[in-house]
Amino acid sequence: MAESPIRFGVLGCADIARKVSRAINLAPNATLYAVASRSLDKASAFAAANGFPPGSKVYGSYEALLDDPNVDAVYVPLPTSLHVKWAVLVAQKKKHLLLEKPVALNAAEFDKIIEACESNGVQLMDGTMWMHHPRTAKMAEFLSDAGRFGQLKSNDIRVKPDLDALGSLGDAGWYCIRGILWAANFELPKTVIASRDPVLNQAGVLLSCGASLYWEDGKVATFHCSFLSNLTMDITAIGTKGSLHVHDFVIPYKEKEVSFSASSESGFDDLVTCWVLEPSKHIVSTDLPQEALMVREFAGLVGGIKFESLKPEKKWPTISRKTQLVLDAVKASIEKGFEPVHINE
Amino acid sequence: MAESPIRFGVLGCADIARKVSRAINLAPNATLYAVASRSLDKASAFAAANGFPPGSKVYGSYEALLDDPNVDAVYVPLPTSLHVKWAVLVAQKKKHLLLEKPVALNAAEFDKIIEACESNGVQLMDGTMWMHHPRTAKMAEFLSDAGRFGQLKSNDIRVKPDLDALGSLGDAGWYCIRGILWAANFELPKTVIASRDPVLNQAGVLLSCGASLYWEDGKVATFHCSFLSNLTMDITAIGTKGSLHVHDFVIPYKEKEVSFSASSESGFDDLVTCWVLEPSKHIVSTDLPQEALMVREFAGLVGGIKFESLKPEKKWPTISRKTQLVLDAVKASIEKGFEPVHINE
Repeated sequence: MAESPIRFGVLGCADIARKVSRAINLAPNATLYAVASRSLDKASAFAAANGFPPGSKVYGSYEALLDDPNVDAVYVPLPTSLHVKWAVLVAQKKKHLLLEKPVALNAAEFDKIIEACESNGVQLMDGTMWMHHPRTAKMAEFLSDAGRFGQLKSNDIRVKPDLDALGSLGDAGWYCIRGILWAANFELPKTVIASRDPVLNQAGVLLSCGASLYWEDGKVATFHCSFLSNLTMDITAIGTKGSLHVHDFVIPYKEKEVSFSASSESGFDDLVTCWVLEPSKHIVSTDLPQEALMVREFAGLVGGIKFESLKPEKKWPTISRKTQLVLDAVKASIEKGFEPVHINE
Repeated sequence: MAESPIRFGVLGCADIARKVSRAINLAPNATLYAVASRSLDKASAFAAANGFPPGSKVYGSYEALLDDPNVDAVYVPLPTSLHVKWAVLVAQKKKHLLLEKPVALNAAEFDKIIEACESNGVQLMDGTMWMHHPRTAKMAEFLSDAGRFGQLKSNDIRVKPDLDALGSLGDAGWYCIRGILWAANFELPKTVIASRDPVLNQAGVLLSCGASLYWEDGKVATFHCSFLSNLTMDITAIGTKGSLHVHDFVIPYKEKEVSFSASSESGFDDLVTCWVLEPSKHIVSTDLPQEALMVREFAGLVGGIKFESLKPEKKWPTISRKTQLVLDAVKASIEKGFEPVHINE
């Protein structure tokens, strides 16, 4: 591409913004251009510490960054409760929007963000990085292989983040639900039932929860996310003919080389004393970390709109919205005393 | 030991009896002595095909085997519905009892078997082989390590047997529940709630089911067992400080060398781009397959009673009974429309 890189503005200096700033630097079609904080000193310190190139802008208010006509796209890592306000403003200023997950407090709020992006012709993508790792495509290949995996029957996702590192429970639940929808080819479940063991802290914040999701065709998925346990990031997807296991789907063990395990047509020897075929380990390498691949994908879509007059890609906001719809249903089931909640798209 | 090996009688020629006959041959303190079938020809063919030594007895009726005074212990692989009748008779004939799982149709039936064994002073053990693999003790060491694993918070077990190889759903559910109780140090859960997605065939037999189990202290376990999916034998136990993964807990991938994966105090690097410590893989070797270790353990207990006037070991029947109690509760919850069922010991 002879086109110039997409210029990113970063809204706020959240911890996660350090990782994404590095990713913007690493992505070949993106560049760090501006950062805003409510404190100019904080913004300057952030720019200095995170590899912002000479000539970058630092702003003491979010509005000032949004008014900079050289900003193509804005990364929003603000607290979830502030998303609807700032994401809508980003779109109204005709900036493309890379929005941290969970995208909003509920689907109704997120619909306002989608509407603002659509009416202003800007690209919207949420910050779920693992979707962009090349391993994810390899695993999806296996899951969609009727001969090796068959039809998905059950899927169990466990995400137990480190509290300090990953922030809110919304994150953990978001990852669980995204992993479930991903394995189900983004078909929404019919019914959601929360597990009966949520743990809340004294402020009423969920520290641990889970749910089972049921599809029309008999597929079932369960997830559990908790701050009270050791770090865990598992997907166990089981099909009629094969199984997939991965234990680091959200943040890979290693940046450049990861693996997953796949079994197919598993069975025993004659006396049932051992397996005939052991699962195979599949190794996937990547030069760029998944967060840089996410930025590259997003910047590529933005470049298409900016330089080639393409339309925004609807796939990403649609996936975000489905994730949010299921998240809402889990919350509703907890509030209704673990009753089944039906999902209407 | 100068003591002579324990002489086993095998009641019936079920498929699984081939594996256990081999195990009796492999165990240094046990010997194959007799086999009975309702057909004498079938018993003779079984003895010839399964390494029964010269001088072994073949019987055309179960009663005849039980009347042989040289039989020390009887292995019972009959269909579950016949267990209570034959297991009680075995005990009344003062034979020690190695009983296939599930041990009975329900806990009330199993209590009759326990009572018969206790009043006749014979050893009772069920045929759950994986309990006897040295890996299981190594994994239990990790789970009980407060520094490395902490307190168990959640446990997910999936067992999806090959229908032909492993027989009935009772088997799969039995293994799931045993795995859950094992990780919970055999403390019974307070409440059991079946999952809302059981699949029954036209004859009303469960092809797929699952449940969540809840303990007083907030521990939760889920299991799923199904004939409709690829073979799976997973335990995912997550504690406050560590996690354990094993993917072949019922039947090991290989007979002589197996592994499990353990993580402890997992965490990320500063930018949350990768893990600081990857899980460690623990390899456990064994000369004897787990089923022979089971027979050796059982024959050792029988030898203690026979040669040293020791009392039968209550640990094994107690574990069997707890497993059966939970199995009963899962069935009750399914029958009550997925209502919570409380367990009283």
